[in-house]
Amino acid sequence: MAVYTRVSAEEIGKFIERYDVGTLVSAKGIAEGVENSNYLIETTSDRFILTLYEKRVDPADLPFFLGLLDDLGAAGLPVPPAIRDESGEQIQQLAGKTACLIKFLPGVSVSRPTPAQAEATGKALGQMHAATLDYRPRRTNSMGLASWQALAEQCGQQALDEISPGLHDHVAAELEYLSANWPEDLRISAIHADLFPDNVLMLGDEVTGLIDFYFSCTDFIAYDIAVTHAAWCFSDDGGDFDQQLSQALLSGHDRTMRLTAAERAALPVLARGAAMRFLLSRAFDWINTPPDALVTRKDPAAFLNRLKFYQAHADLFDHG
Amino acid sequence: MAVYTRVSAEEIGKFIERYDVGTLVSAKGIAEGVENSNYLIETTSDRFILTLYEKRVDPADLPFFLGLLDDLGAAGLPVPPAIRDESGEQIQQLAGKTACLIKFLPGVSVSRPTPAQAEATGKALGQMHAATLDYRPRRTNSMGLASWQALAEQCGQQALDEISPGLHDHVAAELEYLSANWPEDLRISAIHADLFPDNVLMLGDEVTGLIDFYFSCTDFIAYDIAVTHAAWCFSDDGGDFDQQLSQALLSGHDRTMRLTAAERAALPVLARGAAMRFLLSRAFDWINTPPDALVTRKDPAAFLNRLKFYQAHADLFDHG
Repeated sequence: MAVYTRVSAEEIGKFIERYDVGTLVSAKGIAEGVENSNYLIETTSDRFILTLYEKRVDPADLPFFLGLLDDLGAAGLPVPPAIRDESGEQIQQLAGKTACLIKFLPGVSVSRPTPAQAEATGKALGQMHAATLDYRPRRTNSMGLASWQALAEQCGQQALDEISPGLHDHVAAELEYLSANWPEDLRISAIHADLFPDNVLMLGDEVTGLIDFYFSCTDFIAYDIAVTHAAWCFSDDGGDFDQQLSQALLSGHDRTMRLTAAERAALPVLARGAAMRFLLSRAFDWINTPPDALVTRKDPAAFLNRLKFYQAHADLFDHG
Repeated sequence: MAVYTRVSAEEIGKFIERYDVGTLVSAKGIAEGVENSNYLIETTSDRFILTLYEKRVDPADLPFFLGLLDDLGAAGLPVPPAIRDESGEQIQQLAGKTACLIKFLPGVSVSRPTPAQAEATGKALGQMHAATLDYRPRRTNSMGLASWQALAEQCGQQALDEISPGLHDHVAAELEYLSANWPEDLRISAIHADLFPDNVLMLGDEVTGLIDFYFSCTDFIAYDIAVTHAAWCFSDDGGDFDQQLSQALLSGHDRTMRLTAAERAALPVLARGAAMRFLLSRAFDWINTPPDALVTRKDPAAFLNRLKFYQAHADLFDHG
């Protein structure tokens, strides 16, 4: 959420010479996205996001992400492809970092979605899943079920219990439940795996951009819905569930890619898994970020609340 | 250099309804400027900077700054005026902060200026001084000579000497010299007082924007030249003086507003003062910013080096 690598205007001006995009008119460091450095740049021909990849993105994963964006763009999804330079390359080096010049998309991220916005997002997500059923490259979900036990251990019993009394045992029991009940044989595709409202650009009720694919991977379609459900259908603190947003999101997805009975039956456990995934990653960041750092620490309790809600409402996805 | 106050897209969308600027298309938090929060926003009609004023800018000073920008804009200078809402107001409240919607200007800030760029900046600075000789509002230079003794005391002997051995005594002796030799009766105008390359937007050799007027005040025209000289004519670390940039900057200013003999004669002491001003403000920030903060601490030694250079070259401004 900051600019970690400073690049001078002269360097950016020289950098874009390798593309057919005109000359530099403006460059502003922007404070968003996962832990990359981003510049919103304007040239005599268009606007772009210049991204320098910091430690959280492994450059070896970029071909998976960029190929996916190219495929989704070709399928008509509003995603930001990486621009190719005059020799056809998308992945570059700048200021010692791996870097891409990315298409700028209009739209804003809403903070309090409406049902119409949730439905539009569900539809876009379903279109994305339908378009990537046959996306050949594979990427393991590095934040999937197999990683959670290790993440919980890295947090440690004491730190977890400081976040919320009894959290360590709660997590341990839930991880056991999830391992025993995780579905198999559901349809897989490329999934976004992090489609919070932050990562959807909208104009009114229209989705104008799906962005930040840096957790995208190959996993269950229904798990992506579960992640998006956990991300969209609660108040920020997880204290209030919004049934209208939930129905709108699910029916939006069904309109572009109907879930199978097995997928719908698996949603309760997948939703508990999605809540666990963000509970653990937020807990880890919470424990390892100084309270006075400029990076905002996101409260893990917001996803503990979601987890408890999903645990208490196993029939949540029964309708429809 | 960060976004301190987060404002949701919904809040920004609602905020701009008071202006005749169309509806919101994009909003990105940008990481620049003094300690304000800035969003680069795009509407259906144009682009703007939305600034929320944080602790470093006193809202009571805004009428001075904004009136100055209006006057400079009317005089043809490329400055970013604050937009008036439909009832004529420039100064607003948003998210509990004083806020302005400001015209977006194209151009980039250069890191290593060329002589042609320094000359263009000198010309723009001279035009600004000529245009504001009769700017009626007055604002005392809060970072002027009268403030330096107190700033040095707030830094403290030990912390100054930790920055550079003997710095405390060096500063004390220099402050005595400056007080005894500071000029009187030079022409005053509204001055920028912080015209680093960061605060000049350029396209090639053309100045397309003078920005960040939040230190502007009423003071000697020649002092503004001295500040700009210290800001432009050295390597970042102050170790290398560039005679070509110096001549270009001064001759640029002379072309639009010729200095008097008294002003030119005062430049050596004013330049020492300018170096002292940034030495002390950087020392203060250095001492009061944790080394691991995301805010970049600027090395005060860079201006100690400039001060030493000006002390050693009293004849620097004799030519021309």
